[in-house]
Amino acid sequence: VIVVRPVPGLPEIAVGDDLAGLILDAGAAPRDGEVVVVCHKVISKAEGRTVELSSVSPGERARALAIEHGHDARAVQVVLDESAELLRSERGVLIARTHHGFVCANAGVDASNAGAEDRLVLLPRDPDRSARELRAGLRHRSGSSPAVVIADSFGRAWRHGQCDVAIGCAGLAPLDDWRGRPDADGHELRATWIAVADQAAAAADLARDKTSRDPMAIISGLERHVLPDDGPGAAALVRPPSEDLFR
Amino acid sequence: VIVVRPVPGLPEIAVGDDLAGLILDAGAAPRDGEVVVVCHKVISKAEGRTVELSSVSPGERARALAIEHGHDARAVQVVLDESAELLRSERGVLIARTHHGFVCANAGVDASNAGAEDRLVLLPRDPDRSARELRAGLRHRSGSSPAVVIADSFGRAWRHGQCDVAIGCAGLAPLDDWRGRPDADGHELRATWIAVADQAAAAADLARDKTSRDPMAIISGLERHVLPDDGPGAAALVRPPSEDLFR
Repeated sequence: VIVVRPVPGLPEIAVGDDLAGLILDAGAAPRDGEVVVVCHKVISKAEGRTVELSSVSPGERARALAIEHGHDARAVQVVLDESAELLRSERGVLIARTHHGFVCANAGVDASNAGAEDRLVLLPRDPDRSARELRAGLRHRSGSSPAVVIADSFGRAWRHGQCDVAIGCAGLAPLDDWRGRPDADGHELRATWIAVADQAAAAADLARDKTSRDPMAIISGLERHVLPDDGPGAAALVRPPSEDLFR
Repeated sequence: VIVVRPVPGLPEIAVGDDLAGLILDAGAAPRDGEVVVVCHKVISKAEGRTVELSSVSPGERARALAIEHGHDARAVQVVLDESAELLRSERGVLIARTHHGFVCANAGVDASNAGAEDRLVLLPRDPDRSARELRAGLRHRSGSSPAVVIADSFGRAWRHGQCDVAIGCAGLAPLDDWRGRPDADGHELRATWIAVADQAAAAADLARDKTSRDPMAIISGLERHVLPDDGPGAAALVRPPSEDLFR
């Protein structure tokens, strides 16, 4: 049985805030074997990964794309700065591969729930490291060692709407590899390679209320995927460009 | 709070089986406002959507693709029969758009847990109709009217591993559209368009044990997305080819 409980009461986050402390102060009390799923914006704000639009001077490419797509050229410049490669820029949509290797709209740059009118929130620079640090902080303060997942909402190439995925994780096996193991008939389960961390992020999103400031949920029931060490992180979920059939 | 409970005890399904009856006989007792998530294989088997390899005569294209990718030409023929369009056939992978519009590996044709050595399981012909029929059957027999989601595991273009998605649904709003609604700062939540049915399928998969024959889970806590009528179904999740940036 999987249980996902939202954690209300986290305050608006400022640069340098001690997230582990604030999470425990909110009364969350995650236990060993549980998974703490945190919206990336909380992490980014604590790490100072935000940009004020007024501080940005757009370059030539950003200005051209902004005219083409009806965007603010300064916001486009921020997207370009966060991108290793722009895969598509059509119909007002910029789809980029970030420096981490994530393929998503606007390289993960987001204006919603940014905390100020002209502010953009970027993805954390190294979300797996952020997850490891938060896990260590929770362990240090509470003695418990839950897994940590950092989530963002990504669109999908061929489906409408967004699902939350794991952009960082620590202490959760991101993938459960059944390839080569037999099914109930003794057949090889050739294709079964389950993105556990992404499904955990999706399950956590179902428990959250988008309009509230509740950017956190705790999942129990995934104990079999929780690791004593931090594991490979969400980096293991990134399909490298060399295997990419849809550039 | 979201709770996902697996439902054990469903027998191996044969053509014509009364799924609603078998689900209730298994002691599942889903209530109004809950979501019953069923693996598509159960539906396909009940609907006779299986193919014996020995009955298939592969054509020229199937034989050529089979040689190129090291597959069984008969299985490739079945994949082609289920495909409206083959998007990629590289490195042993056939990625197709099915007649329903789903983009997935092998057009959803699967040999695992098929119930017999040489049998392939196809996707249901109209999974939204299958979901509506199952919902009506549950309502008729139990008086309760839970939502129904039919799930399959899909790979993703830029990420390793698979997540379960909704290929059919009835009584669950497949998408929760927050576009244009304000966030906690009063900002417009421009991009927020949540694929609720896909996230429900993913959450259900976390509760299942792949080696068992337990192809079913029940989710509570999604009452706000459960509809009295059947709603638009999972067809609403399909991005039409005209909007597809990644053909």
